[in-house]
Amino acid sequence: MGGDFAPAHPVHAAVEALRNFPAIARLILVGDEAKLRHELARHGVVPTGRLHLVHTTQVVEMHDSPVEAVRKKKDSSLCRAVELVRDGKADAIVSAGNTGALLAASTIRLRTLPGVDRAALAVVVPKRDGIFVLMDAGASVDAKPENLVDYAVMGEAYCRHILRTPDPKIGVLSNGAEEGKGSALSCAAYHLLKDTPVNFIGNIEGHALFEGAADVVVCDGFVGNIVLKTIESLSKTTFKIIKDELTANFVRLAGAMLVRSAFQNISKKFNADAGGGALLLGVNGIVIKAHGSSSVPALFNSLRVAVEAVDNQVNPHIVENIAKVHNL
Amino acid sequence: MGGDFAPAHPVHAAVEALRNFPAIARLILVGDEAKLRHELARHGVVPTGRLHLVHTTQVVEMHDSPVEAVRKKKDSSLCRAVELVRDGKADAIVSAGNTGALLAASTIRLRTLPGVDRAALAVVVPKRDGIFVLMDAGASVDAKPENLVDYAVMGEAYCRHILRTPDPKIGVLSNGAEEGKGSALSCAAYHLLKDTPVNFIGNIEGHALFEGAADVVVCDGFVGNIVLKTIESLSKTTFKIIKDELTANFVRLAGAMLVRSAFQNISKKFNADAGGGALLLGVNGIVIKAHGSSSVPALFNSLRVAVEAVDNQVNPHIVENIAKVHNL
Repeated sequence: MGGDFAPAHPVHAAVEALRNFPAIARLILVGDEAKLRHELARHGVVPTGRLHLVHTTQVVEMHDSPVEAVRKKKDSSLCRAVELVRDGKADAIVSAGNTGALLAASTIRLRTLPGVDRAALAVVVPKRDGIFVLMDAGASVDAKPENLVDYAVMGEAYCRHILRTPDPKIGVLSNGAEEGKGSALSCAAYHLLKDTPVNFIGNIEGHALFEGAADVVVCDGFVGNIVLKTIESLSKTTFKIIKDELTANFVRLAGAMLVRSAFQNISKKFNADAGGGALLLGVNGIVIKAHGSSSVPALFNSLRVAVEAVDNQVNPHIVENIAKVHNL
Repeated sequence: MGGDFAPAHPVHAAVEALRNFPAIARLILVGDEAKLRHELARHGVVPTGRLHLVHTTQVVEMHDSPVEAVRKKKDSSLCRAVELVRDGKADAIVSAGNTGALLAASTIRLRTLPGVDRAALAVVVPKRDGIFVLMDAGASVDAKPENLVDYAVMGEAYCRHILRTPDPKIGVLSNGAEEGKGSALSCAAYHLLKDTPVNFIGNIEGHALFEGAADVVVCDGFVGNIVLKTIESLSKTTFKIIKDELTANFVRLAGAMLVRSAFQNISKKFNADAGGGALLLGVNGIVIKAHGSSSVPALFNSLRVAVEAVDNQVNPHIVENIAKVHNL
């Protein structure tokens, strides 16, 4: 029920996911039952077979304070959905709702994994020759050096076991490449990461994100959120400007027709919808946060990520590797 | 003598600047005299009239430690050039050399302006309908809330008196728009900025940089440097990918010919060379830091920025406004 286009977009995406992902044994829509049935009817679907409904009476709004929402809106779609995961009735939750509330509910109800102090949002970002994982993309504003080490271990497991990167390379986001360059936090994390079993390749500058070697780039949630939104926004603005220019006169319009397939390829590469949202790593369950303004394809892809995450259980690997790092 | 293409690029840019900016009364090239004369000869120029040489025997290398460089390389082109400004023999310095050393030399030899605790690098970044000033782009990795207030005052003066923005709007870079969202630093700066005379419009998210209303966006140098390099690098990578796609087959090549003028316009807008480098605000003098890898046009534009900064003295305004803010 959260997010900008609920329940229309989530219901539509769920219908598509059921049609396309036979691996989904049960898809549970959590929210106002009448509204959900109404939306389902628009797609000619009734809740039977693999599709289930759980009725809730409250909605966490985008402006609600996270902790208040968890405390006072116990019958919200968000809280009830997290409880389904906690109680083993669902393997994963996908939400386009209030990010802070989803984080709070997940951390409070699911708890963090053994040895993990803080959960972090992992986002897959396109680069020239592939992708990299940026984390934390905004779960914890302030972080300690030890948290960044945990992020590295969790991102490494995500890359290796879900994204299927053979030998993930880990970097710390910083303002200079050399050791000793950076904030107090990034320098301390650098120092700690050198002695872990992850394949640590040092500091990663803003310059090196899109052309560099790092598969996982760790930073605190304040920096990660700003960098992620800067990337999304710059891409959008750039393509808006290109569109404005390409449609400015008839000669260019003719040319634009000829290069259309080029931009279709580029748009596929940069398409924010394809990423499927952020995975909340470090909690005892699979939690996927989709953008509040997610389109139907974006939510469909979030459900795809959920299926992949359930298929390739990453949490046992995280628990094992975190224990190794902490026992060093 | 610093930077990747010294002394060739700086000398070439200086020759062009003398030809194009009659406002330059004296242009002083500081460095190895023989090398400078050799480069000048390639452009058919000898040092007479408005062109002067100051011979130095040392060079601050890109890997030199900043403070060591200032202490031990007193006869470097960088240190001598800063001294020319300190001694009133030059109004401004342009350098493509070691950033840290330029900051250290400027802060130590020129000192900060009265009331200013820390200098900050101000960089002009293109957005959809104009530009914004990002600062600090990397002078001080860690900053206190009071420093961010000073950056806001300095950026405001830069916008108003050099960039000629009538009523500059100031924002704090953060991970959320609402008051209370942000790091300990950004929240404290928000709180302080509310009570200053600058036109403070609140938190600016990464989303809002390129479409939003802020003319000046303040943050610490760690975040600013990462954001700036992310922007530069994403732009470069995007246009590389577009070029790859547009030249992938003959049909697209034909189309690319027709839309060429569109990309020339876009390239003008995003051209990093046009910005002319970063202005170091808060020191008692005019200091312009050009990229280490600056092209001749980039250095030419840095000299243009120097002329504009001398013409529209911004430092007296900064001193006046800082005093007002500190006496609140």
